[in-house]
Parts: sequence; structure tokens; C-alpha cells
Amino acid sequence: MHLKEKYLQVRNRTETLCKPLHVEDYVPQPVPFASPPKWHLAHSTWFFEEMILKKNLTGYTEFHRDFGFLFNSYYNTIGERTFRADRGNITRPGVSEVYEYRAYVDRGMTELLSKEISGELRELIELGLNHEQQHQELLITDLKYTLGHNPTFPVYDESFNLLADSNPSFGWLAMEEGIYEIGHDGGAFCFDNELNKHRVYLHAFEISHALVTNGEYLEFMEAGGYSRFDCWLDEGWSWLNENKISHPLYWHQINGKWYYFTLAGLKEVDPDAILSHVSYYEAQAYASWKGLRLPTEFEWEAASELLDWGKRWEWTNSAYLPYPGFKTAAGAVGEYNGKFMINQMVLRGASVATAPGHSRKTYRNFFHPHFQWQYSGIRLAK
Amino acid sequence: MHLKEKYLQVRNRTETLCKPLHVEDYVPQPVPFASPPKWHLAHSTWFFEEMILKKNLTGYTEFHRDFGFLFNSYYNTIGERTFRADRGNITRPGVSEVYEYRAYVDRGMTELLSKEISGELRELIELGLNHEQQHQELLITDLKYTLGHNPTFPVYDESFNLLADSNPSFGWLAMEEGIYEIGHDGGAFCFDNELNKHRVYLHAFEISHALVTNGEYLEFMEAGGYSRFDCWLDEGWSWLNENKISHPLYWHQINGKWYYFTLAGLKEVDPDAILSHVSYYEAQAYASWKGLRLPTEFEWEAASELLDWGKRWEWTNSAYLPYPGFKTAAGAVGEYNGKFMINQMVLRGASVATAPGHSRKTYRNFFHPHFQWQYSGIRLAK
Amino acid sequence: MHLKEKYLQVRNRTETLCKPLHVEDYVPQPVPFASPPKWHLAHSTWFFEEMILKKNLTGYTEFHRDFGFLFNSYYNTIGERTFRADRGNITRPGVSEVYEYRAYVDRGMTELLSKEISGELRELIELGLNHEQQHQELLITDLKYTLGHNPTFPVYDESFNLLADSNPSFGWLAMEEGIYEIGHDGGAFCFDNELNKHRVYLHAFEISHALVTNGEYLEFMEAGGYSRFDCWLDEGWSWLNENKISHPLYWHQINGKWYYFTLAGLKEVDPDAILSHVSYYEAQAYASWKGLRLPTEFEWEAASELLDWGKRWEWTNSAYLPYPGFKTAAGAVGEYNGKFMINQMVLRGASVATAPGHSRKTYRNFFHPHFQWQYSGIRLAK
Amino acid sequence: MHLKEKYLQVRNRTETLCKPLHVEDYVPQPVPFASPPKWHLAHSTWFFEEMILKKNLTGYTEFHRDFGFLFNSYYNTIGERTFRADRGNITRPGVSEVYEYRAYVDRGMTELLSKEISGELRELIELGLNHEQQHQELLITDLKYTLGHNPTFPVYDESFNLLADSNPSFGWLAMEEGIYEIGHDGGAFCFDNELNKHRVYLHAFEISHALVTNGEYLEFMEAGGYSRFDCWLDEGWSWLNENKISHPLYWHQINGKWYYFTLAGLKEVDPDAILSHVSYYEAQAYASWKGLRLPTEFEWEAASELLDWGKRWEWTNSAYLPYPGFKTAAGAVGEYNGKFMINQMVLRGASVATAPGHSRKTYRNFFHPHFQWQYSGIRLAK
Repeated sequence: MHLKEKYLQVRNRTETLCKPLHVEDYVPQPVPFASPPKWHLAHSTWFFEEMILKKNLTGYTEFHRDFGFLFNSYYNTIGERTFRADRGNITRPGVSEVYEYRAYVDRGMTELLSKEISGELRELIELGLNHEQQHQELLITDLKYTLGHNPTFPVYDESFNLLADSNPSFGWLAMEEGIYEIGHDGGAFCFDNELNKHRVYLHAFEISHALVTNGEYLEFMEAGGYSRFDCWLDEGWSWLNENKISHPLYWHQINGKWYYFTLAGLKEVDPDAILSHVSYYEAQAYASWKGLRLPTEFEWEAASELLDWGKRWEWTNSAYLPYPGFKTAAGAVGEYNGKFMINQMVLRGASVATAPGHSRKTYRNFFHPHFQWQYSGIRLAK
Repeated sequence: MHLKEKYLQVRNRTETLCKPLHVEDYVPQPVPFASPPKWHLAHSTWFFEEMILKKNLTGYTEFHRDFGFLFNSYYNTIGERTFRADRGNITRPGVSEVYEYRAYVDRGMTELLSKEISGELRELIELGLNHEQQHQELLITDLKYTLGHNPTFPVYDESFNLLADSNPSFGWLAMEEGIYEIGHDGGAFCFDNELNKHRVYLHAFEISHALVTNGEYLEFMEAGGYSRFDCWLDEGWSWLNENKISHPLYWHQINGKWYYFTLAGLKEVDPDAILSHVSYYEAQAYASWKGLRLPTEFEWEAASELLDWGKRWEWTNSAYLPYPGFKTAAGAVGEYNGKFMINQMVLRGASVATAPGHSRKTYRNFFHPHFQWQYSGIRLAK
Repeated sequence: MHLKEKYLQVRNRTETLCKPLHVEDYVPQPVPFASPPKWHLAHSTWFFEEMILKKNLTGYTEFHRDFGFLFNSYYNTIGERTFRADRGNITRPGVSEVYEYRAYVDRGMTELLSKEISGELRELIELGLNHEQQHQELLITDLKYTLGHNPTFPVYDESFNLLADSNPSFGWLAMEEGIYEIGHDGGAFCFDNELNKHRVYLHAFEISHALVTNGEYLEFMEAGGYSRFDCWLDEGWSWLNENKISHPLYWHQINGKWYYFTLAGLKEVDPDAILSHVSYYEAQAYASWKGLRLPTEFEWEAASELLDWGKRWEWTNSAYLPYPGFKTAAGAVGEYNGKFMINQMVLRGASVATAPGHSRKTYRNFFHPHFQWQYSGIRLAK
Repeated sequence: MHLKEKYLQVRNRTETLCKPLHVEDYVPQPVPFASPPKWHLAHSTWFFEEMILKKNLTGYTEFHRDFGFLFNSYYNTIGERTFRADRGNITRPGVSEVYEYRAYVDRGMTELLSKEISGELRELIELGLNHEQQHQELLITDLKYTLGHNPTFPVYDESFNLLADSNPSFGWLAMEEGIYEIGHDGGAFCFDNELNKHRVYLHAFEISHALVTNGEYLEFMEAGGYSRFDCWLDEGWSWLNENKISHPLYWHQINGKWYYFTLAGLKEVDPDAILSHVSYYEAQAYASWKGLRLPTEFEWEAASELLDWGKRWEWTNSAYLPYPGFKTAAGAVGEYNGKFMINQMVLRGASVATAPGHSRKTYRNFFHPHFQWQYSGIRLAK
């Protein structure tokens, strides 16, 4: 696809996702880690204005002098501390002004993309589009957090299928001991954390074709899994006790039955559907209770072409760390991934909230081990 | 004024205050103590539905079964903890639905007020109107907090005069030692915390006609007032250091000049205008630095008829405690005032944000000593 | 008694109180508000060295150059923050060195007290002795906190009678409406917060001869007092829930029976003995449950000569605030009381831990409303 | 060496380390992560009583029924929360009783070790001895924390050489790409986290012969290293700002010169000595500033036989995670290592505080990335 076409497709998808929103829904930041839709719309646009248009489109004038300040998530200055958790309080500029901002920048980008551009610039634009796709996913998961904590459980879209799927295949896949090639060769677009392709030695292992289902996880819950300290990591046990966790996020027990909040409203838990919204701590405890374990990200990637994946992010037992030869780029783009390489665990795969075509087998998603708000599930290994 | 007329006047004023708001402005709760406009609009309405219409208007059906739960600030159940700080995340019901709720309840109240009603019911409605006036004031101060923490300093209303006034009179008023009658006799509407009229013995004192101005307070700042521990209460000194406080709320030093955020936007500080947005700690420290003190609430009330007041809430040196013979009413209304009688200091007077006619000389406002977000100023005594 | 004799008597009593301690007991600071015995021994000595000997005894050389820094509780510098909660970690100087410090300062004081001294100096020494008596009481209550949180419940002294007494008298004392003289006239030693004698108007009230007993309080507990929110102040209710409070401090339910830790070890709760170790919140909730109230400090003082008091500190319903004409002294001594006049409630009386002769009817003790670790009980009024 | 002899040697070394202590030094727990010497002495003894003597020595009666409860660090019950940070407040049993406990258990162990014992029991005793050696090291580092936060900087032992050494060798060691054997084969004693020996593929790398010195680190400090956000991990930058970190632990700038606290007292910083007491965040930032990186634990182990190591624990860029085939033992011993495998980074090597012979090239030490209180330094790789 031509880059201009791709640009418009990605940008358009973001706005399509927002169609079911009311103006009020664009505003709140329910917790510091979940940003308002308004902010996602503006920040992904800011990337194109700040990183691309200002430097590359002759005659471009910025949309508004405050927007660079308001919608930059990067800058490491004293100011940042003040505003990191305050994105939900910035009521103005309002929603319609943010859409005007998007249209303005899209006009600039369309003009730029009608010209001949360098390979380097093309790469930066591809980064911007992948960045916007990441924010599409966050827009959905953050919105789910807001609506899912509203005691009236509002529906985002009845017809938008974000319910859990069931597994298409079962059993164990056995992989042989040996050297495997891991990581991206950089031939097409990838994030810096996927580079470089390198060799990893794996011992023989088996990995499950199916993801853990709600019904299987309910067995763990009913067997007292949340009160058996021997299944949990020490910090997982503290997390569970301090936060009074006793089930996946969005689950509610009403009159003895389990329900969960979905973007189509509150539904009865489907035991055959794939489990979601568990933390790494829960994933690890479940695996431990089964006498099994989570795969490493290397095992996952080595087996990935023989697995059915893409319905849920899958916690791996790998910490998010640099690959051999990892280099951060100079300037602001260099803050994209490298500085987060501590205290986070890698997830592989993709979820129903991931933009189509955004993920790939070398893709490394990462979150702190206590986060439940992503569509995160469990694949077992042994 | 007939009660129905008064009802409509008060209810109408709330909506008039919201005229300059954009839909987005109705949503955020920037800090747990400041509620969203949407919530103020709905909660003051909930009072009339829950306390009055459901019990007194035959055939009344509630507007929506969830609203009782969503807009009740009172109930002391386990649920409360979950939602106290979450008022800014409840995006639905939306703004227009809240206005429908108001109109629906107003129709019910209009019907009820067209009938003969008991004295007791009339009192409860008066309480509801005074309650709504209190939320009118909070609506303004909470909105100021949201807009005042937006780095773009949006204007609420250029023509809405909420700027600081200057003092009309000066010098000291000397009051004689003796017995004074303090408190309300209950003949007209008052809050339970103003009851009963009782005797207080006061020693001779003098109280200032004028409130402290910005210019006078700047002298304290420039004399190093915020770094002189000997002026401060021990907990005030901790508060100042932990929160890095060095000026009244909403003040900003830009290129060596002092500005403050007002509801008409960012303005240069006017040295002759009355100081506002200081905490009790700051009020006490300023008085101590001057070798003077704050008046007690009894001194204030005894002198009030000879003073010009109503432009700023005035911190007193009295803790918020019950008067002799204080009784709480049975039921939810009994939770109105009494349960807050600890760790708070009394403010007397009224401010530009107070509804006209709402306050009186026996009125007892109260806040924790560290709060700055009300229109709170300083009157000195000796 | 001659001042030298009194000096030696007070100083000696501090050491007598420490006789049953093991070296290890002198060290810990179990919570920031409870200091180690070692610190109490040294800090009360520091007062005499720093405030008196250095300025008034010719030729006096300080015991150790670090002690002024280590055992000063006053200084408001950046350093203070570092060490406020670290008193339990300063293992050196050790216990014997602290006793040498005491002996050294006592020799200096004995020398000074053998000379003619000014009235002003005499007053300062009296302040030092009263200060030491306050630390004697804290030494006992802080030690009780340490031993009482040791799961083996060690005995301080079997023969040291710190068990609760029973009430000697019962019924209500009726007091007439009128003007009462409150406060100290300054003729003998008193703290600055007791000054000046002034007039207070009291309405007629009744006050109980007896303090609330353990048995009476158990009725409140068994009636669900700790889960009835309508009895509690709002912040009391939060305190109770956040800290999972369901009984007075040091109480333990073992196999269905109530025990409490005393300095003579763990004992079964005596229902006839006077209740102790309740917070203001608990005192207020109990009174509210009984349909009664706590007396103000003025009512207490006005009635005190007709009451039997001295077995327990008694929470009053008065906030700790300055009396008319209150002045703080210049310099460090001025930080003694005034700067704590916020967010604390007054207690009147004395306890079994109070040094004999230390308290008087005008004495104002004060603590934050959530503190339970003092010997604090309840006297009702109506 | 015969096991009995080894037992006595290890046990004796613990007590030798305590020779310079005063009774008071045995008591404090300055921060939750640093335990009192008294606790280390008792807890390491408890291991032998609870895990070995009670089950294996016929006729053994426990020393004291409370000690199992007081000195168990393992149990995951509700009780644990109460006492985890309270080890410094348990003044009784006192120091001499703890030494009696040690002597009593040593008599039991001597008796047991004079008999024929099974291989399994021998392994458990070896685990107990290695456990005690770990506590010897913690005893030293925790004591250093207590004394190092005493403003008088007490000397532990002038002659006990815990000062930093200098580097014996310099330059880069180049290692070839290929498969390396990593981990322990279990032939002799090792911890479960070192198992099993397995293959790891390493790409070519270079590793420094020398550790970073104080002088080299000072260059980083003087170049503004602590204020250059681009050198730091995002969470490292937050840690630094929230805790106002600007130098390694125990460093003090006095009149323009750098000093550090050592167990021989406060000394001027020696620029040629090996740097110590830096966190992983600091180690990573320093490496980033140099344009280099930290080695992984696999690189370290592969190169270890060609390196001079043992003077400082060395932060690696590996997260603490299980090796292929890792299994936890059943029962309490299974809680030894596995449950801590999250959010911690591996350190390799040994330090001057490590018991002689305790570490080995496969040894995996681990701490959270913000901890500075171990003797932790930096070896660079590229």
C-alpha cells in the first residue's frame, strides 16, 4: 500500500474507534496509567506535527503554541511531574478542537506525502503510524477501564466484538533442543527493541496450543488459588493482599454467578472463552498451581509459526531487557523503548484490541507484573 | 418570597452559573476534595428527590434507579470507599441526562410546592435549598481548581466578577469585655451547627476593619515568611515543606512579577485587593509574623455588626466544635454537620462565590487547616 | 522543698523508673511518636546542659560535642527531618555513656544549685524539672508500647502498680450556669499554655463522678459499637476502618476472653477497673452511643475540685488552642507548647504514669485524636 | 573438612564477627530490609533447630517455645505482616539469651554430627551453613547501615579490613561467540537457583578486567551524571528524584571533599579504590554514560575463570529468573529462592563481606535495582 493511503487508513481507524463515544467519555483519566481518549487522539497527532511536519514541511506553522506542551509525553523536565497524572483535568482544548488539530495535521501530512520523501523520513512516518496503532489499543483498554469502573456498566458498542474468543486448537507442541534465530532482521518496519536477529540456545520444551480458558481459571479460583501462598511469587502475594485481589479484572460475582464487564456490557462469564485481564502474578500462580510454567519469550517466538496466536497478549517468563547489540536512537525517539527496560515482563502475541497487522512474531509488548488492564492471558509450557 | 418562587430562583441560579461551561468542563474531579460540576448539579437534585419527593409526592416515580446510588454523598457503606474519589470517571449519565434529571425533579417539586405542605416539610425544603447554595459555591471553587491547574489558564467568564475587591474601611474596632450572645435562635432557617443561641464571655479585644491585602501579604513573602519556622505552627511547617508551598494558591511568578489565576483568566496581582486562597496555616503564620493573632469565631460574631464583611471567608482561631446543647437530627440529615466536628477550623463571613443571602453573622463554615482552594482570607485581631 | 533537693529527687526518680530495664530495652523506637528510654534519659539531661549550665555555670565544659546535636528535639533545620524517626538507631553513645552524661550534668547542676541564683534562672530550672517529669511519663508509655508489641509480652515490673484502678465515687455532679475562672494565675510554676487566668461563661451542665469502666466499654463493643458508623465522627470512622481498630490498645481476645497487656504482664480484663488506652475518637463514639457527651476542658476545670481525678487522663471535647492573652516566650523555650496548637484535643487530669505532684487542675495535656498509647480514659457529661 | 568441624567453624565465625559489638548495637532494625544482629544470630540458629534438630535428634527439646515464632522469617500467615518490620523492637529475649540459644543448639548439633547421618540430612545441614554464611554477610551490611546512619559515624573495628581494594588487572577480555555451559551441575553444594547446568548461546563480547573505581565514578558525578536524564532508566530517574540521590550510599561531601563511611570509620574517598554501594540504576546509568553496558550474568559466568573477581558484588544486566528445568523443593525450603524471582537483578561475584569460600562462579546473588546497601560495584562490557 502507498504510504499516504496507509497513513489515512491508520488515522481514520483511530477516529472510527471513537465513534461510539459521548463527549464526556473523552475526558477522564481514571488512573495515572490510563489516559483519556482525548489525549490519545491529540498525542498521536502531536507526534506527526512535532517529529515530522515542523522539520520537513516547508511553510508549516504549528496548529497551536500550547499543544506541543500539552500533548508531549516525553520531555523529562521538572514540569512533567506536575502533569503526568493530570491528563484528565485538561478540559480545554475540547474534543472538537482536538479533532480540528487532527484534521489540520492530516492536511499537512497529506501534502508532505504527495512529495518525494527520503527513506529516513519514510521510516519516521512508519514509526508514527505504529505509534498511533499502539495508542489505538491503549485507547480501547483505557476506555474499558473507565466504563468498567462505572457502576452502571455502560456499553461502548454492542456490535463491536471485543468478547473473548474460544481456542481453535489443543494439545502440546514439542520443540527440539538447539539454536534458534530470535529477533527482527530490520528489513521491514520494527521497533528498536526487536533488533537484532540473534541466536538463542533453547533446551527441549513443550508449549500449549490452547490458551487457558475462563473455565480452567475458575477451577483455580475454586480450589482456593488466591489464598494459597505457595503458588505465588512473594511480591505477587503482597500485591494480592494489599489490593484485595481475588479474581481477574472486570469480574463480578453477583448472586453466586460470575459476570464480567466487556465493551458490549456486563455479560455472564463464558467458561469456554479465553481468559483475559490477569496480571503476570496471576499467570505465574496459575501455572505454578498446575505444576507447569510460562514459556520464555524465546520459546514463544521459536514456536510461534506453529501456534495459533493473536487473540490475547500472552505473559512470558522473560523480563524486558535489551537484545545483544541493542542501540537506542539519538534524541527523543531514543526514549521510545530502552528506558523502560527494568521491572517489566514481556508479553507476546496480540489481542482483539490490537490494530490489524500491527503485531508480528518478533513483537515485544511489556508491562509491570501487576497490571491487569490489558487483554492479557496465559499460555502454558513445560 | 413564596417558597416555590424561591425554589425556582435557587435552582435556576445553579444552571446560570454553568452557562459558560463546555461539556468537557463538567466532567473532571481534579482532586478528591473537589467534585465535578456534573456531580454538583446531580447531587443537589438527588437531595430533593430522595429526601422530599419520594416520601411526600404521591405517585412520584424516581427518575432512574441508578441515580440514588451514583449521586448520594452520604451513605456509610463499604461501597462508599470505592467511589469517593471516582466522581470524575462517571462519564455516563452525561451532562444532558443530568439536566433532564434536574428538569424532572423540578417538575415534581413544582407540583409539590403548589400544594399545602407541613411546616416540617417546608423546613426540609429550605434545607435542600441552602444545601444547593453550598454546592453552588463549591461548583465555583472546584471549577476554579480545574481551570487553574490547566497550563493554558482558560477563562470561565470575562464578565463574571470574581476578582478580589479592595477594603472599604480601615483601623481597629475595640470591643469591651463582657458576656455576648452567640449563635442562632432558630427563629428562621439556620444549620444545626449554629444552634443554640448561648452566652460566651469575651475579654476585651480589638479587631481590624480591613482584611489583609495582597500587598501586605507580599511583604510577608518578601521578608522570608515562608522560610521562618518560628512563625509557623509545627504542622503548618511540615505542610509547607512537604508540599513546597511558597505563596497563596493560584499565584505564579513569571519573569519576576506576580500573577494569579482568576475565573476571568490570569491577571497581575493587585496589591490593594484583598488576599485570598490562603490556608489557616498561612493565615496564622502571617498573624504571628505581625505580632498579632486571628480572632476567635466568638469575637468575630460579637463584632460582626460593626464590621464590613462578605468579600472573603475569614479564618478564625476557633476549632469547629459543637455549641452547648448541640443535637444532631435523626437519620441521614443528622450526618450533615456534626460528624465533621474534628480537626477543622471555623471560617466566618462569606465570599464572592457565596450565593447572595446565603450566609449570615452566625454562619459557621469550616475546613481543614491546610486547604487553600476556597476564597479564604485574613482578618487580624489583638 | 529546697530546689537542689527537688532537683535530685526528680532526676533520681527517672533512673529509678529505669531500674527494671535490660540494656536492650533502652534502644528501640517502635514508632516515630514513641522514643527510646535512652533518648528520654539523655534529652531531659540535654535540657539542663544546653539551657542552663552552658549559660550559667562559669567554667562548665560540655560533656560531649555531639550530644547537643543528638539529643535536641527542638531545632527546626533541614537536619531534623533526617533524624526524627531515627532515635532508635543511634546505638552509640550507649546506655552507660548516657548515665555518665546524667551524672556529669548532675554534678554541674549541684554546683550551680549550691550558689545564689536569680529568680529567672530558678524558673528555668523548674521548667527543666517539669520537662523531665513529662519525659518520665513518656518513658513509661513508650516502653509499654515496645513491650506490649513484643509477642512474648514481657513484664516490666510485677510490683510496679500500673494496673487500672476502680472508681471511688459515682453519680452526676450538677454545676450551675455562670462565669467561672479558668487557667493559672502564674503565682507558682505552670506551663505557658495554662496562662492566663480568665473568665469563661458556662451553661448549666452535669459531669460524672466516675470514669467509664472496662465493663461499661465492653457493653459498647458487644453492642457492635465499632461497626455503627452513626456513633463516630467521620474521620474517626475512617481511622477505625483504615487501621482495623476494634478495641482499646493492648487488648487481646484469646479463646473468647479479653486480656490486656499491662506493665505487670498480660492480665485478664477487669470489668470494674477504669478503662484506658482509648483514642478521642473512641471516647467520642462511646459518649455518642450513650446519648451523652464529653465535657469541655472548661467544664472539667470548673468542676474539678468536686471530682476525684488523677487515675487516668480524660479526653475533653476541647481543641488545644491558646487562652486569651497567650504569649510564647522568646527563643527555644517559646517552641514548648504554642506551635502544637492545631489538630489536637485537650486531656485533663493525670494518670498512674504521671509523676506525683506534676499535674494540677489547670494542667492541659494534648494529643491527636487518634492516639491510644497514653493512659487515656473517658468521663461523661450532659 | 569433616562436617562437624565445618559446622563449628561457620558458627564460630558469626560470633567472631560480633565481637566488636556493644549490646545496644545488636538491637536496631534501621529499615525494614536490614535486620538487627540479634535477629541474624537467632534466625540462623532457628534454621538448625527447626529444620534439623527437631526432626532428627532423638530426645531434643526445643530451647524456648516462643523462639520458633520469633525467629522464623518464612511463614506466610496473617501474623507475618505484623512483625516483618518489627524485628528491632523485640528487646527480649536479650543478647545473652540469644547466645545461650546458639550454644544450646550447637550442643545438639554437635551431638547429631557425632552420629552417622544420611546424605539428605548432610545436604540440609550444608544448606543451613550456607544460609548462616549469607546471614553473616547481611549482618555486616546491615550493621554498616545502622552505624553509617549514626551522625557520629562509630567505628566497628579499626583493624577489620572492609575498605575498598584496588584493581589488580586492566584492559578488555574478548570472548568468542558460541555455546557456553552455564549453571551448576549439582555435584557439590549449591543453591537451587544455580541448577541446572545448561547451554546458553553467547554472541562475541568484551568484558573489562577491572571494576570501576571511585575516581572514575567521580568523573561521572562531576560531569553532571545525576542530572542527565538521558543516561538513566525511567524508573531509575524517578528513584533518583524522589529520594534525592546524588552519590553512592555512605558518601558525604564535607567542605568540598568527598568522604565515605567505612566500618573503620569515616575516611576520605580513595580514587583508586573500587567503587561500591551503588544501585543497579546507578550502575546502568554509569555504563550508559560511558557508551558501554553491563554484562549479562551468562557473559559474566562464561568469562569468570579469566577474570579477577571477589572484591565486590557486580551488577549484571540479567533479571533474576529461573534456569531451564528449575524446580523448587517441597515445603519451607522451597521458599528459599524461587519466590523472589521477579523485579530483581542478578549480581555475580562476592565481596569483602562474603564469607570465605561461600561464593563460586555459578553463584547468583540478587537485589532490587534501587538497593545500595550491599557492597555492589560495576564491571563494564561491550
